[in-house]
Amino acid sequence: MTSTDVPAALMGAEIREQPAVWRRLLASEQFGAAAQQVLRRRPRMVLLAARGTSDHAALYAKYLVEVTHQLPAGLVSPSTMTAYGAKPDLRDVLMFGISQSGGSPDLVQSLEVAREQGALTVAVTNDAGSELAQVAEVQVDILAGTERAVAATKSYTAQLLALYLLLDRMRGGSSQAAAALPDLGDELLLREPDVLAQAQRYRFAQRLVTTARGYSYPTAREAALKLMETSYVSAQAFSGADLMHGPMAMLDAQVPVLAVVADGPGGRAMGEVLPRLTASGADVFTVGTRQAVAESTSGIVLPTGIPEELSTILEILPFQQLAMHLAVARGENPDAPRGLLKVTETL
Amino acid sequence: MTSTDVPAALMGAEIREQPAVWRRLLASEQFGAAAQQVLRRRPRMVLLAARGTSDHAALYAKYLVEVTHQLPAGLVSPSTMTAYGAKPDLRDVLMFGISQSGGSPDLVQSLEVAREQGALTVAVTNDAGSELAQVAEVQVDILAGTERAVAATKSYTAQLLALYLLLDRMRGGSSQAAAALPDLGDELLLREPDVLAQAQRYRFAQRLVTTARGYSYPTAREAALKLMETSYVSAQAFSGADLMHGPMAMLDAQVPVLAVVADGPGGRAMGEVLPRLTASGADVFTVGTRQAVAESTSGIVLPTGIPEELSTILEILPFQQLAMHLAVARGENPDAPRGLLKVTETL
Repeated sequence: MTSTDVPAALMGAEIREQPAVWRRLLASEQFGAAAQQVLRRRPRMVLLAARGTSDHAALYAKYLVEVTHQLPAGLVSPSTMTAYGAKPDLRDVLMFGISQSGGSPDLVQSLEVAREQGALTVAVTNDAGSELAQVAEVQVDILAGTERAVAATKSYTAQLLALYLLLDRMRGGSSQAAAALPDLGDELLLREPDVLAQAQRYRFAQRLVTTARGYSYPTAREAALKLMETSYVSAQAFSGADLMHGPMAMLDAQVPVLAVVADGPGGRAMGEVLPRLTASGADVFTVGTRQAVAESTSGIVLPTGIPEELSTILEILPFQQLAMHLAVARGENPDAPRGLLKVTETL
Repeated sequence: MTSTDVPAALMGAEIREQPAVWRRLLASEQFGAAAQQVLRRRPRMVLLAARGTSDHAALYAKYLVEVTHQLPAGLVSPSTMTAYGAKPDLRDVLMFGISQSGGSPDLVQSLEVAREQGALTVAVTNDAGSELAQVAEVQVDILAGTERAVAATKSYTAQLLALYLLLDRMRGGSSQAAAALPDLGDELLLREPDVLAQAQRYRFAQRLVTTARGYSYPTAREAALKLMETSYVSAQAFSGADLMHGPMAMLDAQVPVLAVVADGPGGRAMGEVLPRLTASGADVFTVGTRQAVAESTSGIVLPTGIPEELSTILEILPFQQLAMHLAVARGENPDAPRGLLKVTETL
């Protein structure tokens, strides 16, 4: 019997391992030197290239750069530099390539072109020997250890924290606020029985909507992807602002909504969204402040006393657990999703 | 009886009106002067702010800027400048605000902040007197005429063409290739009976997936939004490259796939995607090249002889018709979607 015969054995272990990974990153001395390397080039703009889960870490970094560094930032479409052969002028540009494996060929090619075009390139990977790390001038190792479950969990929050630590050092920070994360993560993971009950509630849901704003928007995106990857449910993420435009029309009591409302400007910008959702009869599960959870059908209250930009690292945990338990409730094994087996075993 | 009592009367008329709107834009003399205004500032980077359908026009412009202008480009998250009060250094930046109405308060505020921070601001709107046009230094009028249906159609392709014409003039182009668009659009709209049959096929579908790469990726995004807005079906858009990662697991014979495969590098980058989809048993409807349609379950062949970057303006037409007919087939009135009424009538 292999470990993949026990449903979610790998994914469950990797979810629980996250606070330990964060402790490793907080103790790492790589960020000071990397920040110095970047600052010497005085970047005036930041570009980020990534795919899938890593794209959500890129989106988080984009908010951090825009808000805390006051620099313009954009997510790159790798195809413009690969399929279309674009050679943009990238002097003064800091370009991140973010990938768990560091092996994605179009990201490697994007970083190669970016470096030729004058950008300072930074690879954020879980494999210091990967091709992406080799083509970049600056390497950040997310120190998550081997990730065996197909659905990325610990590598995602490790990417978030590594990007936070690098960007915080770049503005002279000591990352003191992040020191509380591992203990708060351990505490939040103990809410698993409540998440399990919620997974039972969604057992027969065909589609779900996730929503958030600001620093929590990457959480909404990543939660939707996790649910799709493991449970084959159709899960769509909307910025709270976009949801108020068109997509509100498709919501009714048949479409559960998963909201993220952190304590900060992004969470406050969700203020009008929750009342409109509940007025439409939607079933709303919120991971967020005590008040936001009270305004919802059900939810998980986030630990207090952490800045909103670090809350992103915590608030995904209940959604990872939800994706895992929903998959198991539906008779699926999230360690080995259909069509996505990492290892194929024959008898 | 008002016009909204005939299902889709407004949306149908506005879809059919598009080639006439394009003729108006092609005859407009505003783009030369606007291009000169922009070029005087020698932008080194482009940012775009928009929401909903306009965000898909922004994504199209991002590809154009990156590929044909060799400049880095990024989509802005308006909340960083509104909710978080970010004041990025935007010297040498060209910042677009794109909005049909030109009235969205957070876009207006984003453009105001951008201008204060040194950016050259351009408003692309359907209302030259709107607040967004007033706060911007350069105004582009998309000349679509009043849009009465709630689901945007003619304003979307007018945004695409207006952005193409401005960006083409900025690099000294004469936009000759675009002259063929109106006639090709009229021709493509005649395929409506085939689209209607396809809508019947999707009558009971609960969810749909759309996919494309490169210049056609905005089409996949906009097609998904149109289907959601009018038919309350759950429609998700994926880049062909992202689809090969996680979300492939959720596809099976129960989830129809709508693909866009234009004649060009983006379409060719879809090469491996269609065979994998059909191998998974998926029902694939393709708007694209003759070969791509032949490899699919069904589809609409695009007119030939148009560059891939202009194909985006044509290829959305069948999806607009599909969204409209699917809504009607389901007993909905796409002119007046639930929860999105533009005008509320009382007896």
